[in-house]
Amino acid sequence: MGRIHSVSNKAEANHDHKNLYIIKIGGNVIDNSENLHHFLKDFTSLDGYKILVHGGGKVATQLSETLGLEARVVDGRRITDIETLRVVTMVYGGLINKNIVAQLQRFGNNAMGLTGADGDFIQTKKRPVKSIDYGFVGDIDETSVRAESISSLMDAGFTPVFCALTHDGEGQLLNTNADTIASALAVALADLYHTTLIYCFEKKGVLQDINDEESLIRELDPQRYEELKTKQIIHSGMLPKLDNAFTAIACGVKAVIIGHSGELGSLQQNKPFGTRLSQNS
Amino acid sequence: MGRIHSVSNKAEANHDHKNLYIIKIGGNVIDNSENLHHFLKDFTSLDGYKILVHGGGKVATQLSETLGLEARVVDGRRITDIETLRVVTMVYGGLINKNIVAQLQRFGNNAMGLTGADGDFIQTKKRPVKSIDYGFVGDIDETSVRAESISSLMDAGFTPVFCALTHDGEGQLLNTNADTIASALAVALADLYHTTLIYCFEKKGVLQDINDEESLIRELDPQRYEELKTKQIIHSGMLPKLDNAFTAIACGVKAVIIGHSGELGSLQQNKPFGTRLSQNS
Repeated sequence: MGRIHSVSNKAEANHDHKNLYIIKIGGNVIDNSENLHHFLKDFTSLDGYKILVHGGGKVATQLSETLGLEARVVDGRRITDIETLRVVTMVYGGLINKNIVAQLQRFGNNAMGLTGADGDFIQTKKRPVKSIDYGFVGDIDETSVRAESISSLMDAGFTPVFCALTHDGEGQLLNTNADTIASALAVALADLYHTTLIYCFEKKGVLQDINDEESLIRELDPQRYEELKTKQIIHSGMLPKLDNAFTAIACGVKAVIIGHSGELGSLQQNKPFGTRLSQNS
Repeated sequence: MGRIHSVSNKAEANHDHKNLYIIKIGGNVIDNSENLHHFLKDFTSLDGYKILVHGGGKVATQLSETLGLEARVVDGRRITDIETLRVVTMVYGGLINKNIVAQLQRFGNNAMGLTGADGDFIQTKKRPVKSIDYGFVGDIDETSVRAESISSLMDAGFTPVFCALTHDGEGQLLNTNADTIASALAVALADLYHTTLIYCFEKKGVLQDINDEESLIRELDPQRYEELKTKQIIHSGMLPKLDNAFTAIACGVKAVIIGHSGELGSLQQNKPFGTRLSQNS
């Protein structure tokens, strides 16, 4: 909060020409090789600096089941015991991440696959045990992201591809929510770039009627968001995502877009894409 | 071969102050957490630019067995079918690589875990099918390694940690021998650095009598190597490794050391370490 006011003149001058897109994809893209292929092509075509953040997908769940691990979920969050951490390190950090990198390279995008441990880019704190022990889960705070270091990697010509893993700086890898990684990266890099955070999912964007893809809301600013919340027009499941998005905007991120992973190409063609959240629409 | 003659004056000038160690470790370190901890501490203490290359270990074999995959080995080489490739991508690229990175970060070494696909650093060709189909195995040639690009990563302050995976540039990951990756990196980077290639294994070095660790040969140059070969003093199992090592030296690598992973610390203390192969001892 208020970090936008600390932007230096140098960084502000850069804002005009250094666009950065931070794009998060989830299971609906990762689990379908055709969707993934299409998305990665659109991602490569997008002009400007880019960071990809990906979550897991069905593969981690399937491998856990094959290995006889019991999936434990409390309040919608997976408990990451040491065996589950091994599985997500293999699947997120290895299988998914490195196959995405190899495919991006095929399209001419010089990708580099990363966890938060690589380059010490994202250091988190293991979630304290209160009523629930979430296990090896890392929580991000405002000191987590090394923005300058990530920036130097991009300046060297590499496209960072982050999976949903971080580390505690003491040798321990930690499972960390990909949505949160994406917004933390966006906020941390907002001082250095004209930053747009994009959440790709399976819907066209924020809908007035969750069953009607035509009811897409194109633009949202904080005032309109409050009105729609008051009128209970926005589906309650979207509220945490939108609250986080407006927090990111308040912290200097220029815009947040929530849209369908298959339509990312519209952005490059200057066509409407998803729901655009900004300070002033 | 002969690449040493193409070294530019600039690079030669650099040779005086830019030491690079490329160190390969195998299963005997990776499979034992105490050995690994000890080795990674010594690796971190070593002055100069450093690249770590690691192979697999028992974990990949164990996971394959748990998943019911049949290990197929022909002429001492593992056949990499698509399911085995998935396993090694998970284990080498995810589990082993990222845990090594997290531990190096703990020791203050700014490691970055890589496959050859990341940064397009090592592009290989799928081994042609002749009498045997080795599956998804990549062979390195002299165009495989992007030395300048790896150098720029090290100049930015990062320590590359390569696992035994490369890519074909067409979206396909490929399993690639870690020894070969290490020597290819050493040869490719020999123009830019005063490069030492180190193979760490479970013996003290090249032994005159394989059953007597006290029979260590401290120094080997091509002439003495030929003499020992003629007298059949060197164990035949070491010959391919040593032939490769002398080829690397002929291509500009300053020295190759073959030694015990637990004794790497001797190098930093200027104490004798393993068998040192060089053009002139």
